[in-house]
Amino acid sequence: MSERSIAIIGTGALGGYYGSRLHHAGRMVHFNLHNDFDHVRLHGLCVESPHGDFSIEKPRISQSISDLPPCDVVMVCVKTTTRGLLDEALGGALKDDGVVVVMQNGLNVEAEAAAIVGPDRVIGGMAFLCSNKIGPGHIRHLDYGLIRLGQYSVDNEPRGITSAMRDFAADLEAAGIDTVLEDDLVLARWKKLVWNVPYNGLSVVLDTTTDQLMQTPATRALCEALMGEVVTGAAAFGRTIEPAFVQQMLENTDKMVAYAPSMLLDYRAGRPMEIEAIHGEPVRAAASQGVDLPLMQCLYRQLQFIDSRRS
Amino acid sequence: MSERSIAIIGTGALGGYYGSRLHHAGRMVHFNLHNDFDHVRLHGLCVESPHGDFSIEKPRISQSISDLPPCDVVMVCVKTTTRGLLDEALGGALKDDGVVVVMQNGLNVEAEAAAIVGPDRVIGGMAFLCSNKIGPGHIRHLDYGLIRLGQYSVDNEPRGITSAMRDFAADLEAAGIDTVLEDDLVLARWKKLVWNVPYNGLSVVLDTTTDQLMQTPATRALCEALMGEVVTGAAAFGRTIEPAFVQQMLENTDKMVAYAPSMLLDYRAGRPMEIEAIHGEPVRAAASQGVDLPLMQCLYRQLQFIDSRRS
Repeated sequence: MSERSIAIIGTGALGGYYGSRLHHAGRMVHFNLHNDFDHVRLHGLCVESPHGDFSIEKPRISQSISDLPPCDVVMVCVKTTTRGLLDEALGGALKDDGVVVVMQNGLNVEAEAAAIVGPDRVIGGMAFLCSNKIGPGHIRHLDYGLIRLGQYSVDNEPRGITSAMRDFAADLEAAGIDTVLEDDLVLARWKKLVWNVPYNGLSVVLDTTTDQLMQTPATRALCEALMGEVVTGAAAFGRTIEPAFVQQMLENTDKMVAYAPSMLLDYRAGRPMEIEAIHGEPVRAAASQGVDLPLMQCLYRQLQFIDSRRS
Repeated sequence: MSERSIAIIGTGALGGYYGSRLHHAGRMVHFNLHNDFDHVRLHGLCVESPHGDFSIEKPRISQSISDLPPCDVVMVCVKTTTRGLLDEALGGALKDDGVVVVMQNGLNVEAEAAAIVGPDRVIGGMAFLCSNKIGPGHIRHLDYGLIRLGQYSVDNEPRGITSAMRDFAADLEAAGIDTVLEDDLVLARWKKLVWNVPYNGLSVVLDTTTDQLMQTPATRALCEALMGEVVTGAAAFGRTIEPAFVQQMLENTDKMVAYAPSMLLDYRAGRPMEIEAIHGEPVRAAASQGVDLPLMQCLYRQLQFIDSRRS
């Protein structure tokens, strides 16, 4: 097998970390950069991590997506609020038998890529990663890093574990990144929403961190109620999330230090928030099955208000 | 009939306005004052109003509730967040055949007075008033002023229109205050909540005024959904609020200028908020009938969080 090539669309806290690890492990990684291009061209990429710091003096970089060569994998690591990049990227940056891995938060985030390259060539990826970009080309990895992969399907049916998933998992494992292959992407996406919906949404509406939400009985109960609605949403697609999973998410969050979810960081920094992917899409998806999620819709509407007022 | 006497517990924007009008119309009004006592003793009360400005040079005032003489009516005009006053007030300030009129926002606000003097002697009052206290003893009445009165009952059954209601309505009408006698206090209270629940709650959670909530489609829809839950709450007690009433509330609010509901004013001024009376009690009351109001409970929990964080 020839050297595997991987394009990273979006070299931030997530793409910069995983891409650098894959490069470090010998994969041919092409980083697409925007604001940081000039800095990285001169100074390279720098990764700090509990697993050991390292830097890449001369990474393969491009400022324009159209300059990317055809790759085995295109890893989409921009936020869902960045739109319209993929048309250009997936035109040139993907080999004929290459796959797209959509490493984004939320639900139905694979649809845009699937419309361009076909659903069979799209894998959903979920990162459980604590990482920040602390400067141009400078990534600080704090903890975790596991990636869950699942095959996308238009009809929401489980597609099992594909050879493309196994190939990419081998790339990741070679780079020291724990990987879980999911035979049901829809279930995995909803399970991730169990955490993302309450903590991202409420942290912005109440401008607070997870510890405050958990220490106040009223909002701890509200987090649990919102998690219950995510379980209801999953059930609308025939997926069962056990009550024990919800309790585990609550207990995990109880144990965390004061944590600012990504949407709160985006809100405080004045960046776009992933409201549609995390809150809008699940509400709409459940509604398409005739299921109302009133608390999630309430949160979604409050977030829309907050978003509209700052723009 | 001898000269009717009325004690005003809480001489603020509401009690100061109505009490002054009743005094101006010749009723024997006793104002209970706290912070403003010394100022009013020296300078009297001053009312500005579209109906004509007037002042009361020497109002009958008391600083201690125990100094109030027995009256025909005790009008409770303090906020629901002021607790423990009534025991003292209703011991001395009420004639044997006198009645208490509880002029407070929310649900079940009459219960405290009813426990002291008995439910038959308690009337619920709802003010539709736009008035501010702009300085010590200085009331600025801006608009409206109608009062709805209804007889309290412990079992939530309609008690019809009583002679005590008619007597107090005569006092109010003599003072130029429009009055509506309600034969069903429970229905009237829930109807007032149709407005109070969404606008008081959301204005605090989103730190905004009614015009902003109405101009943003997402929050306008949320206001309507919350109103729908108030209608569900009323239905849990066998009361019907017509959809047309909800639409009327929305249209009225569309037409209002930027309006800061009382809870938002309290929040911004660092004063206690009437969360329990307006949001907590209706949620609990519906739950007592086996009816969940998830959106109202969500809002209630968010308000509890905001309240807990500032104290």
